[in-house]
Amino acid sequence: MIEYRNLRVALLGAGSVGGEVARLLLEHGDELASRVGARLELVGIAVRDPQAVRAVALPPELFTTDAESLILGADIVIELMGGIEPARSYVLQALTSGADVVTGNKALLATHGPELFEAAAQVGAQLYYEAAVGGAIPIIRPLRDSLAGDRVERILGIVNGTTNYVLDRMDVHGDTLEEALARATELGYAEADPTGDVDGYDAAQKAAILASLAFHTSVPLSAVYREGIRGVTKAQVDAAREAGYVIKLLAICERLRAADGTAGVSARVYPALIARDHPLAAVHGAHNAVFVQASAAGDLMFYGAGAGGIETASAVLGDVVSAARRHVIGGPGVAESTHADIPVLPVGEARTRYQLTVRVPDRPGVLAEIARILAEGGVSIETMQQKTIVDTEPPAGAPPRPAAAATLVIGTHEARESALAATVAAVAESEAVQSIVSVLRVEGATN
Amino acid sequence: MIEYRNLRVALLGAGSVGGEVARLLLEHGDELASRVGARLELVGIAVRDPQAVRAVALPPELFTTDAESLILGADIVIELMGGIEPARSYVLQALTSGADVVTGNKALLATHGPELFEAAAQVGAQLYYEAAVGGAIPIIRPLRDSLAGDRVERILGIVNGTTNYVLDRMDVHGDTLEEALARATELGYAEADPTGDVDGYDAAQKAAILASLAFHTSVPLSAVYREGIRGVTKAQVDAAREAGYVIKLLAICERLRAADGTAGVSARVYPALIARDHPLAAVHGAHNAVFVQASAAGDLMFYGAGAGGIETASAVLGDVVSAARRHVIGGPGVAESTHADIPVLPVGEARTRYQLTVRVPDRPGVLAEIARILAEGGVSIETMQQKTIVDTEPPAGAPPRPAAAATLVIGTHEARESALAATVAAVAESEAVQSIVSVLRVEGATN
Repeated sequence: MIEYRNLRVALLGAGSVGGEVARLLLEHGDELASRVGARLELVGIAVRDPQAVRAVALPPELFTTDAESLILGADIVIELMGGIEPARSYVLQALTSGADVVTGNKALLATHGPELFEAAAQVGAQLYYEAAVGGAIPIIRPLRDSLAGDRVERILGIVNGTTNYVLDRMDVHGDTLEEALARATELGYAEADPTGDVDGYDAAQKAAILASLAFHTSVPLSAVYREGIRGVTKAQVDAAREAGYVIKLLAICERLRAADGTAGVSARVYPALIARDHPLAAVHGAHNAVFVQASAAGDLMFYGAGAGGIETASAVLGDVVSAARRHVIGGPGVAESTHADIPVLPVGEARTRYQLTVRVPDRPGVLAEIARILAEGGVSIETMQQKTIVDTEPPAGAPPRPAAAATLVIGTHEARESALAATVAAVAESEAVQSIVSVLRVEGATN
Repeated sequence: MIEYRNLRVALLGAGSVGGEVARLLLEHGDELASRVGARLELVGIAVRDPQAVRAVALPPELFTTDAESLILGADIVIELMGGIEPARSYVLQALTSGADVVTGNKALLATHGPELFEAAAQVGAQLYYEAAVGGAIPIIRPLRDSLAGDRVERILGIVNGTTNYVLDRMDVHGDTLEEALARATELGYAEADPTGDVDGYDAAQKAAILASLAFHTSVPLSAVYREGIRGVTKAQVDAAREAGYVIKLLAICERLRAADGTAGVSARVYPALIARDHPLAAVHGAHNAVFVQASAAGDLMFYGAGAGGIETASAVLGDVVSAARRHVIGGPGVAESTHADIPVLPVGEARTRYQLTVRVPDRPGVLAEIARILAEGGVSIETMQQKTIVDTEPPAGAPPRPAAAATLVIGTHEARESALAATVAAVAESEAVQSIVSVLRVEGATN
């Protein structure tokens, strides 16, 4: 029996992830000790209510409400409370005292990342956050280390399991948004108030973290453009399927050159069409996947469970082992990149493609008029398809009546978002158009 | 302008990967320096013939034939020569002198890994090898670090691009093995002598590396069971497609319990059927993917370019940046796991499923006889499908003649490989059977 030294691990929070982390630390102590070269001693779990009923049964003597005393003297602090305060203060306290911190707190990182990294750098402590994006999927370490010698050009991420589940249900089972969301709530994928997921806030936090890491610069949450999935209709999902697309909520991070030539980056979240044969189209249910395009490596994809207590606990424990190995060998940890100061460009500068569906009267000259508006806006048309709508039901046996209106589906070539948006506004105002049925961006083209 | 210290980088080998590594080091010096906090100075490139014509134009003054002098005084040595000697001696020289080594040499790692890791540990140097498996795909670091707190149960890897290209051609384009291989050679995916790829040697080396890493134990190449794809026929590929499968050459690493209860691991390479809806089935062309099942994380997949000069150079440079960051911050590097001493079990102990196709005379009692042989071998049948073969062409207009023979396709439940193999041998010897048409294993079941 090898005698290992002890490393003191403090856990803040015992929710679905925290509970599993505690259980695995207690149950797999020997195996982890042999991998680390030290014993990971869980010295306590700080929670608001030690008496609360929890999914995982843990020794009651570990619980405390006094997080600050627990952090004192810990070698590694695991923060899984979520939210900004008091999580931020505790993480700063831990880093300042020289402890390594492992967190899965995406909100905290997306809003206070630079402050925390600075505090860590001051004392040579480490801040690990693999669990903050993509649940169990290793994506932080590959971006920070494996691709550090490459140049990441673009990330397309399905990083929110709830919305992917909802959109997948709508696509595969023909649910409406409301039906799919109700089912997600039933299964525990969506919270009672699903705003954070459905409106894209969660994905935007992850986009800020991924973009900062991938481009070695600081991308604040406030600079991430965000649209959620509330506007996605069953009709859009069905039309997408017919046209060989699927709608996914994407976190998009890319290098970009602005109209004035400025080199910058873009981080944005919105539902978009991607082709059925794109690897991301095959990501079903609540799974996550991050598709990375790098200058030398080409296309890479990282796929797995994006949430779940035990799955996310895997990512947390990977970070705990890394922190522990650092303690065992001594010396400072891995340095973060010196951050480049790359401007984050507004969404109007992004280049994308639109799929625009409009309802028009079925009379001559309408197509020409719409084509003219697009050309004036500098938007060139890649495809245009007209579908005749038979508005009134003909009597049984009688032939269909002449259509009262038509639907026009227009696919554009790539253009700047600002030009596309302005052009859609001009189309909407035209007398040639009865109404705008749908506007969706198309992403994932290999250009 | 920040003044950075210099780190001396020596490159051994200037083939397709080495040439790209040199080019990227020279062209992206500033960007890399800002990420590392030090300048990566390529001090020389050791090659056999400095005058040889190369794909990438590099400054002639960098070339030398004197690898040993080049290694002296280098902070980081990149070994991309391939082969065992002199690569092994140079890597040992570099590690012993305290330099960190980055290598993509799978043959060397699979045969001399323990010796090299031991040499590195002696002086606190680091040995990085992300490029040895999966080309550009980050898989070594996720296994070593991200999943270090989890328990990897199984890896199914498509880790050889050439054979995946060949099998994919056979499936998608209906090529024979010979046609597909000729096409692979034409495109440069296969070498003039494709033995290393086609017979599974390359995949077996990678399996040894992955298994050692995933199970924190030592799995020597000699313990890896290996079958190549030479026996895979167009008829098998077509039958697989009809049955909802695809044939892939898989590197399989898994935890296993032997018949006598011994806990061990298995590493093996063979062509196997996997279901069309398995994520690995969608890996086309020369791409690679590694599917990992871990106890807590669940199913993960890592996908990307498995070969190619510039793609693999991305993985090499990621390792170079890691090594360089370590030099900048000082102190020893990341510790490898203390290796568990888990026995590597022979392939006979593996549990798998068989799909067995036999040709039988079309007479009563044949099915019963075969079912009896399988039952005696302890193999239970999951599916059995009989196809009648009309051996002789009937005259035009006439009804088909009674069949002379039938083909029987038997899918077994999971059983131990030794039992399955013995049972197939017994079936082959039975008078109820005319010939064995095909024997393939089925992998990737979610059990």
